[in-house]
Amino acid sequence: MKYKEELNNKIKLINDYLDKIFDSFPDSQAQIIYEAMKYSVFAGGKRLRPVLMLSAFEAVGGKGEIIFPFACAIEMIHTYSLIHDDLPAMDDDDYRRGKKTNHKVYGEGLAILAGDALLNKAYELMIKASIDYPGKEALLAMDAIASCAGTEGMIGGQVVDLISEGRPVDLDIINFIHKNKTAAMIESSLKAGAILGQASKEEIEALANLGYCIGMAFQIQDDILDITGDEKELGKAINSDLKNNKATFVSIKGLEESKKYVERLTRQGMDYLEILKERGNFLIWLSDYLMTRGF
Amino acid sequence: MKYKEELNNKIKLINDYLDKIFDSFPDSQAQIIYEAMKYSVFAGGKRLRPVLMLSAFEAVGGKGEIIFPFACAIEMIHTYSLIHDDLPAMDDDDYRRGKKTNHKVYGEGLAILAGDALLNKAYELMIKASIDYPGKEALLAMDAIASCAGTEGMIGGQVVDLISEGRPVDLDIINFIHKNKTAAMIESSLKAGAILGQASKEEIEALANLGYCIGMAFQIQDDILDITGDEKELGKAINSDLKNNKATFVSIKGLEESKKYVERLTRQGMDYLEILKERGNFLIWLSDYLMTRGF
Repeated sequence: MKYKEELNNKIKLINDYLDKIFDSFPDSQAQIIYEAMKYSVFAGGKRLRPVLMLSAFEAVGGKGEIIFPFACAIEMIHTYSLIHDDLPAMDDDDYRRGKKTNHKVYGEGLAILAGDALLNKAYELMIKASIDYPGKEALLAMDAIASCAGTEGMIGGQVVDLISEGRPVDLDIINFIHKNKTAAMIESSLKAGAILGQASKEEIEALANLGYCIGMAFQIQDDILDITGDEKELGKAINSDLKNNKATFVSIKGLEESKKYVERLTRQGMDYLEILKERGNFLIWLSDYLMTRGF
Repeated sequence: MKYKEELNNKIKLINDYLDKIFDSFPDSQAQIIYEAMKYSVFAGGKRLRPVLMLSAFEAVGGKGEIIFPFACAIEMIHTYSLIHDDLPAMDDDDYRRGKKTNHKVYGEGLAILAGDALLNKAYELMIKASIDYPGKEALLAMDAIASCAGTEGMIGGQVVDLISEGRPVDLDIINFIHKNKTAAMIESSLKAGAILGQASKEEIEALANLGYCIGMAFQIQDDILDITGDEKELGKAINSDLKNNKATFVSIKGLEESKKYVERLTRQGMDYLEILKERGNFLIWLSDYLMTRGF
């Protein structure tokens, strides 16, 4: 229960900082764009990526406020990717987490711009925070995030996901999509947190490796929950992959083997945390929590 | 003629660096995204923003290679904004500079992702270049660009342009759109070039002011050419604003007053360059060239 409380504390810290950012936006004739951005940022996200970043930062002994603009930036990048993913030209989703998607509320044009605006604002935040930062860590953390968000990471994964639609896909393609579309940003969250916390090279590598493992596990767990999950707890309809005739890790490997693989990946990730001794305890609990989650 | 040659030399330097960037992308299952990005980056752009940045850099005595990743980044940000602008949910344009728009070639989904990818890649480039840069100038230049590209700049202008469609607009709204959608990025090009060239505070301000003036003039000149221009030279059909029933500075103020205003703005911009003495000569020629352009 102690760790669950710690998780909720971290989520609150991040939500408070996000609130502060949105409160700081100037009055503008373009006001509607801030509304559209805020709508999706506060649409019930689990704050997984910023929590992981903050946890890695603390686990390596990081101190100070530098982590918050970066943690909020990664949530903004994640949110922009969801807004664009949901567009009619992509996944064409009307609902996400039980709420209307951005373009269903604001129209397609503003939804595209709200996504663009969140991506740009994420960099604005990180750049401004980096100007007064004394060392190179802020730039290195930005580099880790930017590389994982682009064509050699998240966007690359989304591209292959898009062009694979309606085509037969094999496990190689599915792994490429999971690795890039999902795991890359989770990996970079932990890596950036470690860098900002002034971790050693070995600690940074260990936390990045944990990120890769739980990122891959996270996506497969998502696909498992699409079959076995509770619609209320999930906040969305199940069996969407089946209905959309979408091949997943689960549809190829079967439910049992997939569950085992999620567990194996998570354990493998946890093993990397040995280097942190007891300072890694919260991240171990969080990894286990993600593996056994029903939402 | 000397200056025209200098302009062509600068354009060639920028095109060569852009080529180098695209050649450096790794082989990937997501290869198509690099093609889509390249298609629009090499679709006949005038390279105005990177040329202005490079010119400001040189005018204040800047040295070294740091200017090129930044100059290419600003062209990528400009290109992403055009790709998203042309989408059916925005301006719904099939052609730009006589070539099919990105979504007409690659489809809407990939066009959205190509825009996202160019924006992200612009930051990747600037961040990587900044890591090895000894001073704070690279971060400050990135900050100038990022602030002007977002909701308090280009995106804000695009938002007001979008929500004003089909509504009566006054000169205030038109000026807001011009200032943010067009002038902001031109201003930040000159400002970032000056910062990277280690200019004095006064020089940076002078070049930013020049950028504001020729940026505003540039947009009005665009609207003038939409009436008086030669379709072949322009690479697009004229009278589009009239056909779309779109209010512009020209439709409100008339052709003659608009022409005078373009000239006045440009002269005003040139006056700021006095601080640079003869080092400002190329930028004065370029400002004049833009004011009298027919393309």
